[in-house]
Amino acid sequence: MTIKDVAALAGVSLGTVSNYLNGTRTVSPDTRTRIERAIEVTRYVPNRAVRTLRGNRTHTVGLLVPDAGNPFFTEIARGVEDAARGRGDVLVYCDTAGDPERQSLYIRRLAEMRVGGLVISATASMPPDLGDLEAVGTPIVVVGGEEMALSTSRVTFDHHLGGKLAMRHVLDLGHRQVLYAGGPGGELVVQARYQGALAALDERGLDHALLHRVDATGRSVRERSELADEIMAMRPRPTAVLCGNDLIAIAIVNTLIRRGWSVPGDIAIVGYDDISDAQLAVVPLTTVRQPAYEIGTSAAKLLFERADDPATPHREISFVPELVVRESSRD
Amino acid sequence: MTIKDVAALAGVSLGTVSNYLNGTRTVSPDTRTRIERAIEVTRYVPNRAVRTLRGNRTHTVGLLVPDAGNPFFTEIARGVEDAARGRGDVLVYCDTAGDPERQSLYIRRLAEMRVGGLVISATASMPPDLGDLEAVGTPIVVVGGEEMALSTSRVTFDHHLGGKLAMRHVLDLGHRQVLYAGGPGGELVVQARYQGALAALDERGLDHALLHRVDATGRSVRERSELADEIMAMRPRPTAVLCGNDLIAIAIVNTLIRRGWSVPGDIAIVGYDDISDAQLAVVPLTTVRQPAYEIGTSAAKLLFERADDPATPHREISFVPELVVRESSRD
Repeated sequence: MTIKDVAALAGVSLGTVSNYLNGTRTVSPDTRTRIERAIEVTRYVPNRAVRTLRGNRTHTVGLLVPDAGNPFFTEIARGVEDAARGRGDVLVYCDTAGDPERQSLYIRRLAEMRVGGLVISATASMPPDLGDLEAVGTPIVVVGGEEMALSTSRVTFDHHLGGKLAMRHVLDLGHRQVLYAGGPGGELVVQARYQGALAALDERGLDHALLHRVDATGRSVRERSELADEIMAMRPRPTAVLCGNDLIAIAIVNTLIRRGWSVPGDIAIVGYDDISDAQLAVVPLTTVRQPAYEIGTSAAKLLFERADDPATPHREISFVPELVVRESSRD
Repeated sequence: MTIKDVAALAGVSLGTVSNYLNGTRTVSPDTRTRIERAIEVTRYVPNRAVRTLRGNRTHTVGLLVPDAGNPFFTEIARGVEDAARGRGDVLVYCDTAGDPERQSLYIRRLAEMRVGGLVISATASMPPDLGDLEAVGTPIVVVGGEEMALSTSRVTFDHHLGGKLAMRHVLDLGHRQVLYAGGPGGELVVQARYQGALAALDERGLDHALLHRVDATGRSVRERSELADEIMAMRPRPTAVLCGNDLIAIAIVNTLIRRGWSVPGDIAIVGYDDISDAQLAVVPLTTVRQPAYEIGTSAAKLLFERADDPATPHREISFVPELVVRESSRD
């Protein structure tokens, strides 16, 4: 099958198909639909990589996430994907497992594949050459990595405030033995939220010793459940736990209840992210909300601005965390 | 940066770097590591798609899954990815949302990107031209899609047996009002497991009317939880529910318990897949095990056989389902 078959079937000129394929001129939505259908029906595949789309680019957006098993990132992916699909682009994504080395490798591989743009959910450290990649034609948006100096457009969060909101909440409820189970995620994120929680103690003139800290780096449900058993064995026992994400919080809730404990009666639990499972957990979860889907669409918006016009200045969109109170903390 | 910089830094000849990049000759692991490092440090990016790796192919494996939010598929992805990484390849994946049209589009886009191979977790219908794609140089392995005639290597399951094992189990426990909550997933899969459950009734000379059926097509936790409320309102009320996957089963368990019901006291719940959350749910889940990680590594094995030697005949690896009994069904 050739491009001529596509044009004939779509009832448009060769030039129009070429405009569509190379992105040299905008085609109407109706024409685009007909061309897309014709390409499907004729099974037309440009047979050399150099003939891929939008000039030398594919109609593809790459996304790197640190944990594809966390619905928070699946939901970000859905946001990016829906925005991309609105342009006829598709999303491919890669799981870096939070490993900066793997992240570097995946960025390179996706750049080699000539993706039309890259959204990178930051790991603990970012490659220093993102600006170079942009210079050679791969627009990049970073999600997170607030504390790093990066010359890209980005979506950021106020982790310090998030930690403070969670801590204020449990202090308001009278808790004075609090555990911060930070992670997984970049050390800077974990640290920023921890500092926020300490700031909430400072606001009330309370001793920092009321807040203990343990790092929850595991990404498997087994590791998260084991953390619950460790918490149950701690002396003094924490009466409230602030978790690094909702998956940790849900695993702790499930394990406590399996062991015959009560949430929040024995221990109050606060998550982070507000994934959709949080509201529908066996004990609905108090958590700090980060609106994942909107984060994804915002990242895509910043990306497409630069893809369509590389002269667009880098921009930043900041999301402000919000406490959502549910049964896991209130009696 | 050029390929010369890479060779200089790695301390190897230009030809060795070229062999590595084009896959024309195997290089030793040590040399490969040095070249990879040099590429990282020099930030070398082949600057035309035609210069991508392994001849005209990228060092990339594409994976299509019908629901990236289901840990069953995340775990398959991990299996494929680990196998790919063993060869220096990376995994990129796409979520088809179970939509055959989106699946066709993504297959085409990944082929355009010159992935080194494609693993496709089947949706309800598969494009008829997979053989053509293989012919133009993209090896393909299909996971599932048992009832379809496909000329590719594949990994298959015995869904009929899976349904039968689940139904036998609840019949053994004395249940005589059973609900089959099939889906999401291909109609053929849902139907095959349903027929298996009916076969379990036949074995004992029991009436098919003991098994009701409802289709659980929703992929969100909200839809899954709403299903639980529907089940609680059914008259006669089922005393056991066989679910299309573990996520449905877990959402039902959580909702029943939130409403003050008991599992398995009021209703026994059986899942499907045995994702790692099943064992660590608030009530550990009886389920039909499909070993996701091994499914992923097996699919990768079949793929690489054909990638390395296109003359390798198509092969099939079948997984036999296995019942795992936990608290959600036994009293």
